Amino acid sequence: MRIREFDEADWPRVWPIIREVVRAGETFPYDPEMSEETGRQIWVERPPGSTVVAVEGHRVLGSAKMGPNRPGPGSHVATASFMVAADARGRGVGTALCEFALRWARSGGYAGMQFNAVVETNRSAVELYGRQGFAILGTVPRAFAHPTLGRVGLHLMYCEF
Amino acid sequence: MRIREFDEADWPRVWPIIREVVRAGETFPYDPEMSEETGRQIWVERPPGSTVVAVEGHRVLGSAKMGPNRPGPGSHVATASFMVAADARGRGVGTALCEFALRWARSGGYAGMQFNAVVETNRSAVELYGRQGFAILGTVPRAFAHPTLGRVGLHLMYCEF
Repeated sequence: MRIREFDEADWPRVWPIIREVVRAGETFPYDPEMSEETGRQIWVERPPGSTVVAVEGHRVLGSAKMGPNRPGPGSHVATASFMVAADARGRGVGTALCEFALRWARSGGYAGMQFNAVVETNRSAVELYGRQGFAILGTVPRAFAHPTLGRVGLHLMYCEF
Repeated sequence: MRIREFDEADWPRVWPIIREVVRAGETFPYDPEMSEETGRQIWVERPPGSTVVAVEGHRVLGSAKMGPNRPGPGSHVATASFMVAADARGRGVGTALCEFALRWARSGGYAGMQFNAVVETNRSAVELYGRQGFAILGTVPRAFAHPTLGRVGLHLMYCEF
């Protein structure tokens, strides 16, 4: 597996991953009925942000997007999002993408990386981020409507460099 | 002073308030060089969101925007932003706008209201929100580049209904 910059030609293999994650409605505060065009606008970052794919041969295993978390006076803090194909989970793809994003942000001079809305029941993500140095700074209770678990909390997580 | 729905004809009196607040760079994580068109896109909400103005005769004293904080599974939590004209501060305009937004969100069936990035040195705002029932759930340290105070924290504040 290697991680490289997203290319327009990757989109037909990235969109099904996004669509599956968003339709499931368990891990991202995105509209489950998101259109492909909205998906593209949300996921494909323009500079100074970046979108990358984790590939194995011709197969796309996952994707990440990264960039400033806020404009102007907040733009020295980065954020990132990660999605992994259902049949590629448990193989370290998410960890590799997160490590890539952290290196990208450190080398880009950001002061830290913030995740604004990590679903608290998404244990594998919370634990992965914890191993990468992120701390939970706060949790908004009942802020995420999980399809089977009901309203669960959203963590604000942060890793200062 | 009364608070009413924003009308397109109000924009020439709302934009100077936004421009002054954004150019100052002390309280909002918006680009200080924000164009008028971007300002309009950010400030004038479409349904289910709403934008209102606080007026006194023909004068616009301040404005607020409100709506869901996140799409899809996060859309039952509201957010809002408030701006008050420099020469109308200290008269309770911000409090009136905040109370209006809270009533709007409660009557709209939202479960709570979240402020994602309250600059910790903006004491009057932090105290106003505290009086309205908001708690600081967490603070991202050094996440806001204040023009004179350097990097200061951003509070995540929440009021559950």
